[in-house]
Amino acid sequence: MDWNTPIDLNRISHAWRQGRALGLVREDATAVLFHDLLRMGARVAELQAVFPPRTVHALAIKANPLVQVLRCAVGAGAGLEAASLEEVWLAQAAGCPPSRIIFDSPAKSTQEIHRAIELGVWINADNTDELARIEQALTLRRGYRGRIGLRVNPLVGEGKIAMTSVGGHQSKFGVPVSDAAALLDLYRRYHWLTGIHVHVGSQGAPLQQLVAAARVAFDLRASIENVTGRAIEFIDLGGGLPARYDIDADPPTPRDYVAALRAAVPELFDFQGVLLTEFGRAVQASCGWAVSRVEYVKTVANQCCAVLHLGADFLMRPVYRPAEWRHRFYVLDQAGRPKAGDARPVQLLGPLCFAGDIVAPSVLLPPIETDDLVVIGDTGAYTLSLWSRHCNRAIPMVIGVRDTAAERLEPLKARETAAEIVALWS
Amino acid sequence: MDWNTPIDLNRISHAWRQGRALGLVREDATAVLFHDLLRMGARVAELQAVFPPRTVHALAIKANPLVQVLRCAVGAGAGLEAASLEEVWLAQAAGCPPSRIIFDSPAKSTQEIHRAIELGVWINADNTDELARIEQALTLRRGYRGRIGLRVNPLVGEGKIAMTSVGGHQSKFGVPVSDAAALLDLYRRYHWLTGIHVHVGSQGAPLQQLVAAARVAFDLRASIENVTGRAIEFIDLGGGLPARYDIDADPPTPRDYVAALRAAVPELFDFQGVLLTEFGRAVQASCGWAVSRVEYVKTVANQCCAVLHLGADFLMRPVYRPAEWRHRFYVLDQAGRPKAGDARPVQLLGPLCFAGDIVAPSVLLPPIETDDLVVIGDTGAYTLSLWSRHCNRAIPMVIGVRDTAAERLEPLKARETAAEIVALWS
Repeated sequence: MDWNTPIDLNRISHAWRQGRALGLVREDATAVLFHDLLRMGARVAELQAVFPPRTVHALAIKANPLVQVLRCAVGAGAGLEAASLEEVWLAQAAGCPPSRIIFDSPAKSTQEIHRAIELGVWINADNTDELARIEQALTLRRGYRGRIGLRVNPLVGEGKIAMTSVGGHQSKFGVPVSDAAALLDLYRRYHWLTGIHVHVGSQGAPLQQLVAAARVAFDLRASIENVTGRAIEFIDLGGGLPARYDIDADPPTPRDYVAALRAAVPELFDFQGVLLTEFGRAVQASCGWAVSRVEYVKTVANQCCAVLHLGADFLMRPVYRPAEWRHRFYVLDQAGRPKAGDARPVQLLGPLCFAGDIVAPSVLLPPIETDDLVVIGDTGAYTLSLWSRHCNRAIPMVIGVRDTAAERLEPLKARETAAEIVALWS
Repeated sequence: MDWNTPIDLNRISHAWRQGRALGLVREDATAVLFHDLLRMGARVAELQAVFPPRTVHALAIKANPLVQVLRCAVGAGAGLEAASLEEVWLAQAAGCPPSRIIFDSPAKSTQEIHRAIELGVWINADNTDELARIEQALTLRRGYRGRIGLRVNPLVGEGKIAMTSVGGHQSKFGVPVSDAAALLDLYRRYHWLTGIHVHVGSQGAPLQQLVAAARVAFDLRASIENVTGRAIEFIDLGGGLPARYDIDADPPTPRDYVAALRAAVPELFDFQGVLLTEFGRAVQASCGWAVSRVEYVKTVANQCCAVLHLGADFLMRPVYRPAEWRHRFYVLDQAGRPKAGDARPVQLLGPLCFAGDIVAPSVLLPPIETDDLVVIGDTGAYTLSLWSRHCNRAIPMVIGVRDTAAERLEPLKARETAAEIVALWS
């Protein structure tokens, strides 16, 4: 498959018009989110095709927590990675079996550890104190060994975006691999400790760092097996590949990643344990797009500005950290057809009552009028899932798209109601 | 009152211990938020005492949207400022009469305008297109004039924090006062346009800018009354005073503000119309605090780090824009008593699974151990209200504190449940 090609604008246009025709999208809709379940399924299938067959591809729930999206991924054979116990509940609600749920969190409470062991999900411990708590919890459950790994910081360097880089010396996650004696000691002491988790971050992490982290994991495995005589049962290659947003060159594909792994870590392909991955952004981002009606067009300091219905509530990172995150934009006319005309600079404003709610300071788009539709591309990951309540606007409806030919649509989530917002704050 | 004095640590400690004794705070509580309703009432009373008696102090709901907090403010005589129609619903749920609700939003849809006119709330229009829509809506309701104002950009310069400054030339809000002829024309054309709204932002805006904006509003009023022969019926001095966070010197108090207004805008005190204010942060920020259990203490690259249960989900701005927002921190021991000991540098980490979730890169605090309690001060505004779903952790319980002597407590909101989080994404 052509992993890095964005969704075709005609598909986006067609989905909108079909939504209108079906009455799913109301005439007065101010913003609607879409997620392409067909594309997501194809991307999961691509991961399954290129990685060794025993791999569990656990998609990061925090990238997109919609239960129907998760359910669809699980149906395609994916697992789910939970960054909190609450996300374990979401995984269960989506019908994911415990053998495909990974529980990662740097702040697991003792109660949460007990609960996760009870459920039988995979657990990656973050630090030595957590291992001691797990030892206690397992003591209470004779005979059960759990599926417990330890997060190791592979120290392969920082990526381009400090906020999502976790492979440097300063990273707050995991035990540094440089503490080799201490690490081996932990694996010797805890006979139930049978997994290794490495993670270097996703967006901004170059391919050679991902591969270097896998190299570290398999070297560590050799040392541990040598010292303890026990087999490492799972290796979790956390983090993922970058998504191709507007500002990025073509990022590596899963095929590129696996080819590089084959060269640098050949024993990965003979590994008799379970290989885990934790892709999120790379699978989900390009499956989603958002459509907002243009509510007003105005001129501010000689600049054309379009007021949208999605701002820092939905696009928190692009608004608060614009140097790091940038989406694609398109314009459809009122009827949902791609708009023609010479591109001109326009500022896209969010609807929130604060000066900083600027979705894009200046983008080139065909002339925009009130009631046109602005499409924001690549919003399938870390947008809705980071939703901020600022100004309390209702979370828009989300529509799932299946079946290329017919663009079959289904509601994944209804628009939030007044009663729900009042209940949230009561 | 001593407006800028933070809440006493003994009160914070006592509220925690009383919450435990009453069973409101469970032994396994990971994080609990508090809001001091007594202090909030006193601050509203202070505003009422120093401003002219006909002033409606409409608190910004987006600063703190808890229905019980809003209800308490309304009970004290305050009004409420809504940044979205959803926030108008919240104001209604809190029992606020329409004559004390202001509806501000830069993205009001035609339907929302109709609804707001029906309800009879105050409306501040943002731009000329919106005025044309209001004209149409009022035409359908013969005899009803509404309570309609226009947001005017007073062009008094930018404040220290670009993201919350709306008085510069680049500001996206309102009609610039420099377009004097056009402005007067609008007031001539629309006989129902009887209000003036100015706003220069809150945190980071110096007092002289706030006062200069009021000067602009009253000068404009004189011109309008002169040209139209009609009286301006309300003037809305939007924005507020800065809150005193850790990094700020003592900001101006309401008394300072009113004294400066008396010198620069004496006719404000004879104004026969309604004066509106829109304080949010200045009233609410210092009424709130958050308590998080320390789940782990670990050493990363020779730095002591404490893992908390609140991160970028609750403290979005301090985590994403640390140069602009910084809170106070304290430590209580397991029993909730202020901890003694020589202060040492510690990094406070949030619980979210991303490298950037750093609540404070380095603060000086007494030695921290696992199960200690870290108190985050001044969290009564723009923290919970900006809650981000990132990693889907449950929103903590919020407890209201009344009555200084007895520290009477009441739950303002229960901790979010698994079922609620699953429902949110279904």
